[in-house]
Amino acid sequence: MVKVGIVGGTGYTGAELLRLLAGHPNAKVTVITSRTEAGVPVADLYPNLRGVVDLCFSEPDIESLASCDLVFFATPHGVAQNTVPAILATGTKVIDLSADFRIRDIPLWEHWYGQPHAAADLVPKAVYGLPEYNRSAIQTADLIACPGCYPTSVQLGLMPLLLAGCVDTADLIANAASGVSGAGRQASVANLYPEVSDSFKAYAASGHRHLPEIEQGLADMAGSAVGLTFVPHLLPINRGIHTTLYANLTDTEVDVQALYDQCYASEPFVDVLPAGSHPETRSVRGSNYCRISVHRPGNGKKVVVLVVEDNLTKGASGQAVQCMNIMFGLPENNGLSMPGMVP
Amino acid sequence: MVKVGIVGGTGYTGAELLRLLAGHPNAKVTVITSRTEAGVPVADLYPNLRGVVDLCFSEPDIESLASCDLVFFATPHGVAQNTVPAILATGTKVIDLSADFRIRDIPLWEHWYGQPHAAADLVPKAVYGLPEYNRSAIQTADLIACPGCYPTSVQLGLMPLLLAGCVDTADLIANAASGVSGAGRQASVANLYPEVSDSFKAYAASGHRHLPEIEQGLADMAGSAVGLTFVPHLLPINRGIHTTLYANLTDTEVDVQALYDQCYASEPFVDVLPAGSHPETRSVRGSNYCRISVHRPGNGKKVVVLVVEDNLTKGASGQAVQCMNIMFGLPENNGLSMPGMVP
Amino acid sequence: MVKVGIVGGTGYTGAELLRLLAGHPNAKVTVITSRTEAGVPVADLYPNLRGVVDLCFSEPDIESLASCDLVFFATPHGVAQNTVPAILATGTKVIDLSADFRIRDIPLWEHWYGQPHAAADLVPKAVYGLPEYNRSAIQTADLIACPGCYPTSVQLGLMPLLLAGCVDTADLIANAASGVSGAGRQASVANLYPEVSDSFKAYAASGHRHLPEIEQGLADMAGSAVGLTFVPHLLPINRGIHTTLYANLTDTEVDVQALYDQCYASEPFVDVLPAGSHPETRSVRGSNYCRISVHRPGNGKKVVVLVVEDNLTKGASGQAVQCMNIMFGLPENNGLSMPGMVP
Amino acid sequence: MVKVGIVGGTGYTGAELLRLLAGHPNAKVTVITSRTEAGVPVADLYPNLRGVVDLCFSEPDIESLASCDLVFFATPHGVAQNTVPAILATGTKVIDLSADFRIRDIPLWEHWYGQPHAAADLVPKAVYGLPEYNRSAIQTADLIACPGCYPTSVQLGLMPLLLAGCVDTADLIANAASGVSGAGRQASVANLYPEVSDSFKAYAASGHRHLPEIEQGLADMAGSAVGLTFVPHLLPINRGIHTTLYANLTDTEVDVQALYDQCYASEPFVDVLPAGSHPETRSVRGSNYCRISVHRPGNGKKVVVLVVEDNLTKGASGQAVQCMNIMFGLPENNGLSMPGMVP
Repeated sequence: MVKVGIVGGTGYTGAELLRLLAGHPNAKVTVITSRTEAGVPVADLYPNLRGVVDLCFSEPDIESLASCDLVFFATPHGVAQNTVPAILATGTKVIDLSADFRIRDIPLWEHWYGQPHAAADLVPKAVYGLPEYNRSAIQTADLIACPGCYPTSVQLGLMPLLLAGCVDTADLIANAASGVSGAGRQASVANLYPEVSDSFKAYAASGHRHLPEIEQGLADMAGSAVGLTFVPHLLPINRGIHTTLYANLTDTEVDVQALYDQCYASEPFVDVLPAGSHPETRSVRGSNYCRISVHRPGNGKKVVVLVVEDNLTKGASGQAVQCMNIMFGLPENNGLSMPGMVP
Repeated sequence: MVKVGIVGGTGYTGAELLRLLAGHPNAKVTVITSRTEAGVPVADLYPNLRGVVDLCFSEPDIESLASCDLVFFATPHGVAQNTVPAILATGTKVIDLSADFRIRDIPLWEHWYGQPHAAADLVPKAVYGLPEYNRSAIQTADLIACPGCYPTSVQLGLMPLLLAGCVDTADLIANAASGVSGAGRQASVANLYPEVSDSFKAYAASGHRHLPEIEQGLADMAGSAVGLTFVPHLLPINRGIHTTLYANLTDTEVDVQALYDQCYASEPFVDVLPAGSHPETRSVRGSNYCRISVHRPGNGKKVVVLVVEDNLTKGASGQAVQCMNIMFGLPENNGLSMPGMVP
Repeated sequence: MVKVGIVGGTGYTGAELLRLLAGHPNAKVTVITSRTEAGVPVADLYPNLRGVVDLCFSEPDIESLASCDLVFFATPHGVAQNTVPAILATGTKVIDLSADFRIRDIPLWEHWYGQPHAAADLVPKAVYGLPEYNRSAIQTADLIACPGCYPTSVQLGLMPLLLAGCVDTADLIANAASGVSGAGRQASVANLYPEVSDSFKAYAASGHRHLPEIEQGLADMAGSAVGLTFVPHLLPINRGIHTTLYANLTDTEVDVQALYDQCYASEPFVDVLPAGSHPETRSVRGSNYCRISVHRPGNGKKVVVLVVEDNLTKGASGQAVQCMNIMFGLPENNGLSMPGMVP
Repeated sequence: MVKVGIVGGTGYTGAELLRLLAGHPNAKVTVITSRTEAGVPVADLYPNLRGVVDLCFSEPDIESLASCDLVFFATPHGVAQNTVPAILATGTKVIDLSADFRIRDIPLWEHWYGQPHAAADLVPKAVYGLPEYNRSAIQTADLIACPGCYPTSVQLGLMPLLLAGCVDTADLIANAASGVSGAGRQASVANLYPEVSDSFKAYAASGHRHLPEIEQGLADMAGSAVGLTFVPHLLPINRGIHTTLYANLTDTEVDVQALYDQCYASEPFVDVLPAGSHPETRSVRGSNYCRISVHRPGNGKKVVVLVVEDNLTKGASGQAVQCMNIMFGLPENNGLSMPGMVP
């Protein structure tokens, strides 16, 4: 039984970790911290967990975290980097769901996140937690930088094309849309129900924080720098990311359906749909699946890839649990086998 | 391992049975029938079940159903009564999620459902599948009439008051609201997204089919006939029922909070919230829990009870699985332990 | 042309006033104040008003407000009472959309709103702005206390019964549900999209601020004190209130449909539906109509009244404009003739 | 006063015509037809129009339609072409909101709509009703082919770039998303609330009926054939289209913001937002505005254009009324001046 700690458990990714780990046969959450809610039962904040989670939030404390085998950080960016070094030093492993250890280029990180990095020397040791690309490195990692929700969908959607080297990597487009839970559980006017519901909009069309993380990952796959236009949109749904990817084939003889089928044939959580399909976000609601379909309109050189995932599951907490399973030698789908909830 | 058949698997309660049973350690669906979709893989209709359910729909057929230990009927009213006698005759047990066997007064059933009853002699043998009221009868039943979604919430909400005999049973009010999945998966204009979303309305305020079923159940609990005003409403949500109940205390000394706490103390799926709480439907989304809170505004004689459940789970398929567990001597929460999905 | 000022224009009722007055043939907004947004064009905050409203927000300032014929206060409770005396003193009329002048019993107001009242002497001079009950007093008023959204729906729904004296006034029930815009445009976790959407709950079941205002109004109509149980609920919709009212007839010979038809026969904004109808909130979305239907389930002594209104229009800003029209001798539906927006 | 007839008034575009024309100072609907609802008051089907529209639906009948100055066809494709010739012959003008007269290449129309065209000779006489491109031709037209909702947004979004000749017309991308009302008011499983809500998907990614209409319009603007990849998506909202357009600049010196500002400077219903903006669909809800913003991420050669419109208004019935105003020499914004409804 893996003893698990969670730092920053009041947000949506923390709550999702609790929901998933409640059904995990080999893991047990023993510590969950929150400065603002210390002493409060978790189930008071999340009544859906009444009868399932008996813990109270506690003050963050290195000693109690060090008693765990693994600590998840479900904190805003800039928090984990201050505490992770001390935790790793005790031999406890860490999976960070924030952006702190994702970008290898420290000045680039500091530019987009507007602050100096407090643990720059740890960044090279962090393993990017995308199992479909990085599984073997994850097995032996002590520190995982768990990918962001948008980056997961874009990278999984483009990986088969980039590994095959059959598209123009200078002109990639990711038109992505996320449910509102992706914005977190902070009080704000912008995410009030009456501001978001029955409406739709793009945001950050001129540049978004996830762009450098995505470009780094795509470049790793392509073997050289890529040019990506990334436009995120805000969907009036709770959970779910839908990404529509556009690329130009440099080799129009390639059978893109076969390429995707083969690339993901043995992946437990990437489901390539039959030709002609269109995945719906609800098909992965609450599940760790990523569903993908590939189209070539008019059989031309443009390839259109449709990707769905749940931003809180495969896009965050589910992927983190998947990494935990890999790190601890557990069956990869333990605690993650529930299907999407429809309707 | 209980071998399970499902008749009428294309609707929402059928799909919910599949989702729940996919995670059940002691049951396996071996047959699922649909006249209209015979030959089609279940996962083509419900892509969320890809990789989880490998069955195809088949033509209804007594022989293959009789090879099961248990058959669930997830059909519209009027269907089960034609086939259930033949299935029971083979020794296979049946849980009917439709209204066919719920009402003991046959002419009353025929009045509200507008057709003659085809298996009236079976009705007295059917056990009403509300475990919190009827657990021991369920253990030995061959045929379960699984309660409707509205009736479950009203009966669980009023049971402690009725058993205690402390309210005026001639003036009970159930102001209930259901998510749209309660209306089923039939093509209709009335339930189109643009007709339902961003709106709210009552319906059937002058009389609804579920009224006689509810009144029968409440009368059983009260030991005499009751007078109920039942007004259902249509909520712009997928799943969930919220029922607000009003009754007049005949004994104002009673501690209603303690009454509810005690009544449901050992129930695995009824969660009485602390005094002052207000349950949300999302706290039970996708789960088999029913959450209840009790209020006495101004400490007067009016008692207000708030009840939430998921209409597809505790209000239908989850309750059916709970009955199955009881019938087959399995731990009652097997396959039903997942918490509600929030957000 | 009535020169209009608006104090507190950044909230939803302020924005709704601007939307309605943009189409009013006899009124022109000349001042709109906001401390936090002074200097900012209104259309920057509300892009839907681009090309329609050219004003900028300005600092609140008695002199500029006094240059108006009428000032609307669209502020939180506790604000108007500090400024209204000075404005009235200049001869400018005031319509207050907040709760400051609605409750005649000052200690009761102070109890529910948790602060001393700064202009208690003005309260007796304020006219309660419910045109259907108070039209002639509104015509000559200088200060209008515009009714709250819940109180409007409950009072309009019960008025015919109370004026006719045919129900037990000691046992009235208002089961009401409001869209989220009723909670205003303040940053909060509770009203975030992921907290509210796809869910439903009651709140304040043990007592709500609107209760004393409603009871005061109902008592005026009944001619004596009333007993009301009021349970509000939060709907996952933008706009709209639906109230389901329950009362016991003391005279079961009364033709309730005729009672409502006659009571509201000449009202421009109260639409009594034919017998058997169920009003939908969307039918009044963005309009000043209130739609009502009346039921007697099983033809018994219980009468069930269904009322819908748009909480921002007939429940706030539309009603305020209706009062303005009455005060200034304009046709009552000027600026208010648009139908509800469906879908 | 223009006497107006509407054929096929039971659908959403018919209802929207009624809503808009109810507030039009120079038009009066005198006939509205529906085979299925003949004899039924319009307000029975659309209670939001109670007190505003007094008409009953009638059987379609050339004589009564010919008594109008103008007839709108709000029918599915394939209907108008059978009746329009007879109506035009009487001197009555026609605005067709369906696809029947939009595509000049008859075999292409027949291919996508799967039926022979019954009035091919009329197609060359039909004027495409996009006022921003075609205003002078609309002034003198007898038959208007009113553009579809997707085509309007794509054409208005790309027109400035195409007229300026500064983008690669061989590689245009339109990633569009529509509210569910765009699918009409026909009974279907696919558009039930539980199938659509809290979810998002692409559809017809390999080819959609609106593609040839869009390509025809863009080619007219560009002066030569264009290559467009068009991927529509289904949004869980009632009304609204959001289109995200991608093009590669051939001239990177061009000031795209100035280009758009100038192109639409005198247009009453196209609102170019300031640089850095992101339009929301709700800002045009129920209004005839189209809002556009332009981005150049990283100041590179990729231009990203964001376009919003209400699919029922500027995307259908509002545009039809705008065309009517132009045809009859009325001020272009008569009946269309209401702002978008927020929230």
